[in-house]
Amino acid sequence: MNSRRDFIRTTTAAGTGLLFMPELAFSRNAGKEKLNVALIGVGLRGTNHLNNLLLRDDVNITAICDTDPERIALNLKSIKKAGKPAPKTFGKDDYDYRNLLELKEVDAVVISTPWLWHVRMSKDAMRAGKYTGVEVSAANTLTECWDLVNTHEETGSHLMILENVNYRRDVLAVLNMVKEGLFGELVHFRCGYQHDLRHVKFNDGKQPYGGGVEYGEKGISEARWRTKHSELRNADVYPTHGLGPVATMADINRGNRFVSLTSHATKAVGLHDYIVNHEKGGKDHPNAAIKWKQGDVITTTIETAKGETIIITHDVNLPRPYSLGFRVQGVKGLTEFDYDNRRIFVEGKSEGHGWEKMDSYLETYDHPLWKKFGTYAEGSGHGGMDFFVMNAFVESAKQNIAPPMDVYDAAAWSAVTPLSERSIANNGEPQDFPDFTRGNWVKRKPYNWMKDDF
Amino acid sequence: MNSRRDFIRTTTAAGTGLLFMPELAFSRNAGKEKLNVALIGVGLRGTNHLNNLLLRDDVNITAICDTDPERIALNLKSIKKAGKPAPKTFGKDDYDYRNLLELKEVDAVVISTPWLWHVRMSKDAMRAGKYTGVEVSAANTLTECWDLVNTHEETGSHLMILENVNYRRDVLAVLNMVKEGLFGELVHFRCGYQHDLRHVKFNDGKQPYGGGVEYGEKGISEARWRTKHSELRNADVYPTHGLGPVATMADINRGNRFVSLTSHATKAVGLHDYIVNHEKGGKDHPNAAIKWKQGDVITTTIETAKGETIIITHDVNLPRPYSLGFRVQGVKGLTEFDYDNRRIFVEGKSEGHGWEKMDSYLETYDHPLWKKFGTYAEGSGHGGMDFFVMNAFVESAKQNIAPPMDVYDAAAWSAVTPLSERSIANNGEPQDFPDFTRGNWVKRKPYNWMKDDF
Repeated sequence: MNSRRDFIRTTTAAGTGLLFMPELAFSRNAGKEKLNVALIGVGLRGTNHLNNLLLRDDVNITAICDTDPERIALNLKSIKKAGKPAPKTFGKDDYDYRNLLELKEVDAVVISTPWLWHVRMSKDAMRAGKYTGVEVSAANTLTECWDLVNTHEETGSHLMILENVNYRRDVLAVLNMVKEGLFGELVHFRCGYQHDLRHVKFNDGKQPYGGGVEYGEKGISEARWRTKHSELRNADVYPTHGLGPVATMADINRGNRFVSLTSHATKAVGLHDYIVNHEKGGKDHPNAAIKWKQGDVITTTIETAKGETIIITHDVNLPRPYSLGFRVQGVKGLTEFDYDNRRIFVEGKSEGHGWEKMDSYLETYDHPLWKKFGTYAEGSGHGGMDFFVMNAFVESAKQNIAPPMDVYDAAAWSAVTPLSERSIANNGEPQDFPDFTRGNWVKRKPYNWMKDDF
Repeated sequence: MNSRRDFIRTTTAAGTGLLFMPELAFSRNAGKEKLNVALIGVGLRGTNHLNNLLLRDDVNITAICDTDPERIALNLKSIKKAGKPAPKTFGKDDYDYRNLLELKEVDAVVISTPWLWHVRMSKDAMRAGKYTGVEVSAANTLTECWDLVNTHEETGSHLMILENVNYRRDVLAVLNMVKEGLFGELVHFRCGYQHDLRHVKFNDGKQPYGGGVEYGEKGISEARWRTKHSELRNADVYPTHGLGPVATMADINRGNRFVSLTSHATKAVGLHDYIVNHEKGGKDHPNAAIKWKQGDVITTTIETAKGETIIITHDVNLPRPYSLGFRVQGVKGLTEFDYDNRRIFVEGKSEGHGWEKMDSYLETYDHPLWKKFGTYAEGSGHGGMDFFVMNAFVESAKQNIAPPMDVYDAAAWSAVTPLSERSIANNGEPQDFPDFTRGNWVKRKPYNWMKDDF
């Protein structure tokens, strides 16, 4: 156990009710300095982060920013209910976040805004000397990827990409298996984002999910901004939920790197089909005339410097069960796992030629973080992942050290978007990854993911 | 029921013992002419075909050829045991099969020889006017693919690629679902050959599977010839078990075609690891010094004319459970299926957002062929597939009509090998497929797979 930590409660605490029960709050030894955190963007995602931060005694929420006054009001209410002091509020215009960044009482910022704002806000935050957390995916273009890296290197400010799936319990258990050498030398990975987002991309302008086929100006929440990317870009615009965990297992930017990729898109028929068959849509609905650019299933294959391949799937416009479709394969065995099916085969351990259920492996290789914080975390959102990603952010920021998933990771993972776009536009032509570490990947040491503090 | 058919027995008949029980023989109405079949290559695979043919009253086995006298002797014994007349035998040298092809009492030939002999034997057979069946994969190079097509077009002789997986019960049921529109417009497919072949690629020179780490001159059976391809070629050398079924569902060469592919290979570590860790191998074994060219996992993505993508996996050098890894995905739903896990999701049918088990769908969509012949077929090898592929061959040959999987399919499916090799050698550069139909794919009609005769 790390001596810097202490729990008022280490048991109980489950269910979302937890988020508003300050008596279960996450506590620190008194000697530790508090981190002053501001949140830029308190839509659904930012609000989730805010609620998790509210539970921590080592965090003051000193400012929040959103251009939607309703979101500000809603979050002020939560903060009050948690018995915490009211933060300063910003959002009178798109650039009011810059006034937030001038506050001395802000050490760290959490950016949960539409994709097109991620890099400009991250750059401004780093330049203002703030420890910066940015939601996924981090960047939209290769220039933006470099902007993140260059700004970090010029300012010395750290940036963490807030990829929560890296903290999923099964993902961290498999990372543990990888580090223990269970699969031997690694050879091949699969991952992706296979999630029917049609009810996210379209709504009725009143509720965030579904109820209509509107987007853009007529939609709200993600439909307001996210769907435009499906209309205009044929690319894997959301690679990190799958790729982040795999990149960590493969020591990307730390003794390994992404070298090149090819990408292929299918035709785009899913969103049109949804619109014309929706009870609020139909063939005569104006959105039925939209020509969607984003292929329904986009397959990207990455080659790494160590000779592995990684297949990433982006599959969000068709009816299907949720799956990130992980596979981790080495010379001694492999696992394929997701929420609804987890299986493993290890030579010499698994009997005969058949798959084993993962259950006993997940217990044996349960990650130290989950052993320690699991019960507490489960109430935090997305099955506990959100607690861990915010915990890593806060603890890294308190020490002002490089985070587990840093600016080079943010750049490399996000680069899949523009590189896949270019490959697709050129008939699957291979695209080289920039080396965002400027060659330093050969000497950078793997981050120690196996500790139990964060 | 097709009137040309009659069963002495339609029930019972299960288990491999069936193969040598002539009283259960597959019978035809007396009026039908018999097909005179010769087998070139009666190793393990050819012997399986021969045993299935022995059960048919509409087939005479008039000649067999193998350069290994032991295989000839073994099969003559089976034929005698089945109460059938002895065929002529060939194999005194590598080209003795040409003397077989001169026989007037041979209507059709089944070629089950090492890959490097497939095309030269197929060409000779077609030129000799024989109805030709060739095992998978059919061809090794693009020139060989064209050779098959050109020879067919010059001679008018038909060629069938003997892809048994096209007749797997679940594959044909899914084909039925596809034809019934269950998945709507098709978008994406996955398939592959994921089969730990290490004990096939290496043996002790005495038994066909395992027991040592020898191959080439010192190995027997497939280890004698197949393993050399792993040593020298970095390509998907065995694409058809996965691709055949998918190509049929996607109407390839019949209103659709493969347009281009990219391919990526991982490093090659599996076979070396196997050799050095085998009790008969070790670091000092001469084969431990071999530098294997074939990457352990090879991923190929094909784009089709109709805008679908197909991912093919070749994964045969690592420890893993057997899986062909099928996915068939359309705008209304998808299925992922294999022997050990079959699941389906159909919008509007499957409740909530979860997968359903396939069982009830497999019953509902059971293919007419399996309904009719299933009980009989199950004893034929590979779970019944081998009966159906040989049945289709015999029935097509008896009528001298184009087979379900014809020379254009053989060429297009097999072309994945040289095209993947070139893509891998060029950093994943896309490779265009030749159009083996010379443009005729736009007007060729889909083969009627849904009938119940063959």
